[in-house]
Amino acid sequence: MRDLAGDLSLLSINAATLRKQLPLLPSLIEACAKRGIGAIAPWRDQVQAVGLATAARQIKDAGLAVSGYCRGGFFPAADAAGLRVALNDNRKTVDEAKAIGAACVIIVAGALPGALEGKPAHKDIGLVRTQVVDGIAATLEHAKAAGMPLAIEPLHPMQGADRACINTLEHALDICDELDPGGSGALGVAVDVYHTWWDPKLAGQVARAGPELLLAYHVCDWLVPTRDLLNDRGMMGDGIIELRKIRALVEAAGYTGHVEAEIFSDHWWSRPADEVLDVCIARYNTVV
Amino acid sequence: MRDLAGDLSLLSINAATLRKQLPLLPSLIEACAKRGIGAIAPWRDQVQAVGLATAARQIKDAGLAVSGYCRGGFFPAADAAGLRVALNDNRKTVDEAKAIGAACVIIVAGALPGALEGKPAHKDIGLVRTQVVDGIAATLEHAKAAGMPLAIEPLHPMQGADRACINTLEHALDICDELDPGGSGALGVAVDVYHTWWDPKLAGQVARAGPELLLAYHVCDWLVPTRDLLNDRGMMGDGIIELRKIRALVEAAGYTGHVEAEIFSDHWWSRPADEVLDVCIARYNTVV
Repeated sequence: MRDLAGDLSLLSINAATLRKQLPLLPSLIEACAKRGIGAIAPWRDQVQAVGLATAARQIKDAGLAVSGYCRGGFFPAADAAGLRVALNDNRKTVDEAKAIGAACVIIVAGALPGALEGKPAHKDIGLVRTQVVDGIAATLEHAKAAGMPLAIEPLHPMQGADRACINTLEHALDICDELDPGGSGALGVAVDVYHTWWDPKLAGQVARAGPELLLAYHVCDWLVPTRDLLNDRGMMGDGIIELRKIRALVEAAGYTGHVEAEIFSDHWWSRPADEVLDVCIARYNTVV
Repeated sequence: MRDLAGDLSLLSINAATLRKQLPLLPSLIEACAKRGIGAIAPWRDQVQAVGLATAARQIKDAGLAVSGYCRGGFFPAADAAGLRVALNDNRKTVDEAKAIGAACVIIVAGALPGALEGKPAHKDIGLVRTQVVDGIAATLEHAKAAGMPLAIEPLHPMQGADRACINTLEHALDICDELDPGGSGALGVAVDVYHTWWDPKLAGQVARAGPELLLAYHVCDWLVPTRDLLNDRGMMGDGIIELRKIRALVEAAGYTGHVEAEIFSDHWWSRPADEVLDVCIARYNTVV
């Protein structure tokens, strides 16, 4: 198991962790680079706001890696036009990820169309799962040509209706097997401890994924009680997730990439950016 | 598939649905019986409050069945004394269930000790899962002697840290296979649509369970958005769960028991009991 104490080159900060304090990419880049943090994971709106070429240059000049690009996916739609828009958008996401040198595109599958706005167009979870597989398949061709891996991120089942209808690592890996049966690494998974800690099959599925398919590893913590289904994630060490145990599983399976801190939290968004980054670093060094 | 329109004999009302309006068992019994509802699922504190013999007589006199007794389980503890207390309590629960003529005891596994109070004693999910299996095994001997089936209810993974570390039907059935390899029906499962609708393996696992192991079936709905991890369940038809499709699976697998409405909801607890029961009946007749 890798020793993370004292070396920040493997630490990545997902921009969502500081999206209220440092919404602009240049300020996030600067804050991370000056601390010696090795990588960031930016969101599309942030890259588009500064412009793709500028973002790519700033990230490169700062010496930062990009552990993942947030995000592709959201394939399901209520009609054919919506499905086409999603496919076009995913191809564009792949190109942007390539331009900024991302390790992978994070794929959040999407779920019932309209559900995120509280107005689900229908309830057919089987249909949207089919649309997701079709969407990933179509995007994969483009991604392979671009040399940009797609990482399916299973989300917690509590986000299964509105954000992602792929909720277990096993389900994500079944899709990888179906669409990329050789396990080339063009299609893999992102393992986020928040979404997967509860899964009794986690250890076996992480081992099944292996080094080729383990494309990203995200950390935060599960608080008890959890007061919100989206924005009440905990800082590493403040909850009940066995962080060391899960990282040991992932690394034993061959993962060698970054450890990305992705903390959607009303609490931490209310704290100064310097404090959040300092706490992230301290916890990364001691409990992750 | 059974036709539920117009016949309330298969409808059961879980007492939690009306726990704010009708906390006392006699009032719940009366309200259900006068509508022709076939069954209730009472909670232990309610039965104990009125006295076991009295509760049993009142339920019988009203002509109601008991679709399940809420609840056994919560096996994990931080020390040996705590484990013993839980086992004794579960044996008592089995005896109470027998006295009131319940179809089964609902087993909510329990999770990290102290987590429900926001003070988890530790984070070892593997340990508590072992304690749960040991606790069910010990209770099963007593339950078999009493002729009272135990129904393991997998809870939604969002309740995995504090309420139940068994979160998928597959995991529950694996435990059934381990502890009652003959599939005698002394140990089975309770399928609640709220906890299981998202599971991509639901259909296969329901079929695996079959008539012997399908001991209870609970309905409500999943709202988008869901605003609370515990008390924001929806009335049947108000959310995104494919109720007809799931009941068809359960009945195709051989389930012939009650359909129990169990709605933890701050919204419905704020409505008059008559209204809640009328809406339950209407939805039972049309969308369940």
